Amino acid sequence: MATACKYGTHRVLEPIGVLPQPAKKLNNDFSTLYDNEILVDVTALNIDSASFTQISEACGGDEAKIGEMILDIVNERGKMQNPVTGSGGMFIGTVHTVGAALKDCDLKPGDKIASLVSLSLTPLRIDKIVKIIKAIDRVEIVGQAVLFESGLYAKLPDDMEENLVLAALDVAGAPAQTAKLVKPGDSVLVIGANGKSGMLVSYEAKKRVGPNGNVVGAVIIDEPAHLLQDLGLAHKTIIADATKAIDLMHKALEANGGREYDVVINCVNVPNTEMASILPCRQGGVVYFFSMATSFTKAALGAEGVGKDIDMIIGNGYTRGHANTTLWELRENPGLRKFFEERYV
Amino acid sequence: MATACKYGTHRVLEPIGVLPQPAKKLNNDFSTLYDNEILVDVTALNIDSASFTQISEACGGDEAKIGEMILDIVNERGKMQNPVTGSGGMFIGTVHTVGAALKDCDLKPGDKIASLVSLSLTPLRIDKIVKIIKAIDRVEIVGQAVLFESGLYAKLPDDMEENLVLAALDVAGAPAQTAKLVKPGDSVLVIGANGKSGMLVSYEAKKRVGPNGNVVGAVIIDEPAHLLQDLGLAHKTIIADATKAIDLMHKALEANGGREYDVVINCVNVPNTEMASILPCRQGGVVYFFSMATSFTKAALGAEGVGKDIDMIIGNGYTRGHANTTLWELRENPGLRKFFEERYV
Repeated sequence: MATACKYGTHRVLEPIGVLPQPAKKLNNDFSTLYDNEILVDVTALNIDSASFTQISEACGGDEAKIGEMILDIVNERGKMQNPVTGSGGMFIGTVHTVGAALKDCDLKPGDKIASLVSLSLTPLRIDKIVKIIKAIDRVEIVGQAVLFESGLYAKLPDDMEENLVLAALDVAGAPAQTAKLVKPGDSVLVIGANGKSGMLVSYEAKKRVGPNGNVVGAVIIDEPAHLLQDLGLAHKTIIADATKAIDLMHKALEANGGREYDVVINCVNVPNTEMASILPCRQGGVVYFFSMATSFTKAALGAEGVGKDIDMIIGNGYTRGHANTTLWELRENPGLRKFFEERYV
Repeated sequence: MATACKYGTHRVLEPIGVLPQPAKKLNNDFSTLYDNEILVDVTALNIDSASFTQISEACGGDEAKIGEMILDIVNERGKMQNPVTGSGGMFIGTVHTVGAALKDCDLKPGDKIASLVSLSLTPLRIDKIVKIIKAIDRVEIVGQAVLFESGLYAKLPDDMEENLVLAALDVAGAPAQTAKLVKPGDSVLVIGANGKSGMLVSYEAKKRVGPNGNVVGAVIIDEPAHLLQDLGLAHKTIIADATKAIDLMHKALEANGGREYDVVINCVNVPNTEMASILPCRQGGVVYFFSMATSFTKAALGAEGVGKDIDMIIGNGYTRGHANTTLWELRENPGLRKFFEERYV
């Protein structure tokens, strides 16, 4: 077995020279494996919501047709990438073979894992569609997939329901980046603190700042009232609209003794919240944008326009150990786990 | 004199509660000054290129009409913000009054300065249009403007031509951020190293890495050949298209002894160069995006897709002392200064 490109370009059939995600067609013949690949027996696909909705509508909601369409896509492209939406999803499966060159890999055959890279870049072969579960965009299959050396995955733990794990891992980057970023004694403003990533981020921040810090959650509606404090996620909650920067800033500063914040973390998924993140941050502080609705230019020009010498970071969905950090929060905080089980499972 | 909002919301007439940039109308009556404002006698406006082009075309290139249109905009809005393009520009002038509350301000009446915040958020009154200089988008005027407490400016030095200073300050954030970011011994890849910001960034990086580091400039055409090495801006140059990520990565790694880079700085102003920045960066390294063509989501999802645990930073046009850092480079490196004088003045 030869060692191949860690990003998987060796499996790109068309067009040659691009990465697996923009590629039109991947090689899903797994009879020859490279020694830095992981072969997995796949049991289920969690299709990206936008993709599943598109396919389901195109098939008039008919399960047999949905199955055929998914099979056609994978046979055609060697991966489950919806040609209309461009998006993928993730898989769940059992490890079959771990390439000999992957000496640091903590997997062994038989381990149950979820992939944490998109199906839109993952070589996949489907032998049989077993069941379509429309309510949760899930397709049970018999098939195999390959993870590249750069591919991310999480071992599924025994002590949690699979759907709880998947819901949490969906946003695993945010709390794990928070763990690296926030220091004891910091003041931290979390904008959108009652969403899925916002709650995990707030709890992590509150743990990290310790007894000398201050974590303030900004929410648009505090529902149920005092939710963040009751779950131990924040010291204070403010109710403010993040698209109204000046108003949010005034409320946020008041909740921090009039001082600007060391760290601001944006977890809101609506546009035009850049200035609400920049204004409350102190000179030399950090703004971390996890919102996919963030505009690069609005952030860059916005900070300059108000003379803020701050580091603005693009939320990276991956950091080493992010799955463990995130699942650990749910083990540590039973109230948060219960809330997640009720809302997201 | 009262102390007002450091971001200038006290001068917003319409709509109340927003920042000066999105505002429709600012108060440009300077008979009452606040004690954290700086009043400047303005001698020239450097209109943003997109804005000047639009106005000039609307006026059929007629200088008198261009002057009238600019006067109308400023009388209407209290600032020189083109209602079509939304953009502004910068001013040059002489300090009239420094508010008493600005104790850390290094300005005194009579100092000649350039504003480093956009005219689109700067209260301005024009008493008279003196001259339109179409070739350089410049309007000489008699008038006054106010800088807010958060407003940025640079004192114009005596030892450099004004146009050289303005050309360099236009991208002052990039080299000054590089100075803070790059450490001795680092390997640094500068993508787009032969543009204006790329050259300033490369020189700063080469200074900072010292004798144990490696600065590699990626350019699409090395013209004139060996430009970067001849000017002392980089150890090596590679010729690669930043929209072809895999090809650029291979060339970049080869120029760094096969190793990934500690720091990658993107100074290319074309879209789809995120992956070319992410792939050559080592785990734990930093990618700094100065390109305004950067897509937030392409960067965020791209790093996750290839499993890169890196910090990705949104280029901030401002950091403390950025004007000094940048002009200092031109004093230190006469070859670079000569090149800038020939190309940009």
